[in-house]
Amino acid sequence: MSQFLRPNIRAMAGYTPGEQPRDGEYIKLYTNEKPYPPSPRALDAMAELLRSDRLRKYPDPLGTAFRHSAGKLLNVDPDSILIGNGSDDILTILTRAFVPEGGLVVSPTPSYLLYATLADIQGARFEAVPFTNDWRLPTPWPKPDAHLTLVANPNSPTGTVVTNQALEGLAKELRGPLIVDEAYVDFAETHAVGLTRLSNVIVTRTLSKSYSLAGLRFGFAIAAPALVRELVKVKDSYNCDALSLAGAQAALEDQAYFQQTHAKIIATRARMSALLPKLGFDVLPSHANFIWATRTDRPVKPIFQELKNRKILVRYMNYAGHGDGLRISVGSEAEIDRLLDELQKLL
Amino acid sequence: MSQFLRPNIRAMAGYTPGEQPRDGEYIKLYTNEKPYPPSPRALDAMAELLRSDRLRKYPDPLGTAFRHSAGKLLNVDPDSILIGNGSDDILTILTRAFVPEGGLVVSPTPSYLLYATLADIQGARFEAVPFTNDWRLPTPWPKPDAHLTLVANPNSPTGTVVTNQALEGLAKELRGPLIVDEAYVDFAETHAVGLTRLSNVIVTRTLSKSYSLAGLRFGFAIAAPALVRELVKVKDSYNCDALSLAGAQAALEDQAYFQQTHAKIIATRARMSALLPKLGFDVLPSHANFIWATRTDRPVKPIFQELKNRKILVRYMNYAGHGDGLRISVGSEAEIDRLLDELQKLL
Repeated sequence: MSQFLRPNIRAMAGYTPGEQPRDGEYIKLYTNEKPYPPSPRALDAMAELLRSDRLRKYPDPLGTAFRHSAGKLLNVDPDSILIGNGSDDILTILTRAFVPEGGLVVSPTPSYLLYATLADIQGARFEAVPFTNDWRLPTPWPKPDAHLTLVANPNSPTGTVVTNQALEGLAKELRGPLIVDEAYVDFAETHAVGLTRLSNVIVTRTLSKSYSLAGLRFGFAIAAPALVRELVKVKDSYNCDALSLAGAQAALEDQAYFQQTHAKIIATRARMSALLPKLGFDVLPSHANFIWATRTDRPVKPIFQELKNRKILVRYMNYAGHGDGLRISVGSEAEIDRLLDELQKLL
Repeated sequence: MSQFLRPNIRAMAGYTPGEQPRDGEYIKLYTNEKPYPPSPRALDAMAELLRSDRLRKYPDPLGTAFRHSAGKLLNVDPDSILIGNGSDDILTILTRAFVPEGGLVVSPTPSYLLYATLADIQGARFEAVPFTNDWRLPTPWPKPDAHLTLVANPNSPTGTVVTNQALEGLAKELRGPLIVDEAYVDFAETHAVGLTRLSNVIVTRTLSKSYSLAGLRFGFAIAAPALVRELVKVKDSYNCDALSLAGAQAALEDQAYFQQTHAKIIATRARMSALLPKLGFDVLPSHANFIWATRTDRPVKPIFQELKNRKILVRYMNYAGHGDGLRISVGSEAEIDRLLDELQKLL
């Protein structure tokens, strides 16, 4: 059967699922989930839906109620919002809308590895543009002709941000669309939604990280309404289920709970940023819910392995030309206490 | 911005969302939802998940627990199962895996309109092969060179089936893969899962219809394990959320409830099939949870409109070369009583 596959699919490396430790066995600090539960209002909204007659019926394909809530929160036209089954679904839709077979996808590196995979699936080329040494975008931008340019901001694994001014400059240099992937933006100080006034800027969001809903799969994009109407043609009609639409809407509406758990993350992040250097790590100032920790005095891979032996999972990452490091999610205070304890013992 | 879109996307007709009547206002007999609630065990499994710590974490990307249950029920290797966010997601994955830009997608007509849309999004051509007058597949098959051939079986809107022998003959004629879309197969007498022993046959399923879970978005494919491993590369890693995985698994495991609601559908379908002809409709023997009702004595579109005025929604469909008809979902006994009453009054 594999002879029927498109050559680009056949050539792709097989997917290796991330580690799935059993609950309770490991402290998970490697996929940037939030350590606090989702909004009780979101859970209530979904529980209520389970008691209703709605699950046997098709969901609203446009997510009208969600879009109104999100529009209100972000101060944008609800028609400028596209709903997605996670922001990965949104990124897939954007790739399919803009990138032809043999086209070009570009993103800074090191960054989110999915961008290259999306290009592979589409049968397109992927090129990475290195960040400058101080984690800015190079100017002039060397690849203005891409069919799609993606910038994760805040970036993963570094947690660094580029300014809206830099993003606007890039958007103006590009001859194609710019996606600002704001998966982590709720942990930063600013966002780029205002840049969607430019005709080639699209901002993407997820509820997986800052709203503690990674298991629910919900994300969205913000773009010009005329473009959203085009993108709707590319998505599966019913890409978002009734539970996720109800849960996502209620989660966004519960800003009081959001702020409360958010403040805890910011406090724990500050503590990690202060203490990890005392253990010999070089730490970038993080605007996300993780810390990128590197060191020059000794290799970090054995530290990753030692932590794993002690039932703490962090993410070891190695980027050609940029070296390796540990990406450590901002966990609960207790989880980070354990992490720092174990690091102290083993270093 | 639309100048950046791929030409095939720009050329597509804009999506017109289906009618979304407010609950209770209309009797919905137009999207083939099942009139009975989902399995109580499925609802319990999802409610339990809401009370757990799992929603803030990423779901299992491969759906291992679901695949084991489905494998057991269907008597296939769990590794031959691919999970999807509805069977529309599965059909999208298959199109992306097999069909290059400029490639060819073929299906019999009249059938599920999504197949042509999937070709459009992929930048491929779509060609329709008319069923024979007695709703069989023509032999020899005129388009053996398609990159993807899709046969809905049972077919929509007709509710007719082709035999496994016919499908096997088609699979052997084809030089590419054959998708047997079994969205409605639980309402039929046989299925084609056994044909996946052929190297180019893939069967797709959904829980939207026969398991009353249209709002949950869950479907799956059955294919050779080596092929499933390739298709996993094309899907979004986390295409299925934790709630749908838990709900779908529990629904499949609750065969007692399934059989009980299933028997009601089959009984109501028999009643509709017997009574609609008495009202002047020509009715094909249905193997699905809807009836395709046509008539030669008068146009059916005004009947559709009259029913709508009386708060009953059925699906009016018009296929070039095949004429038009009403596709009427098998509702509850009370809903069908209302339908037959109103039809009697207006005819």
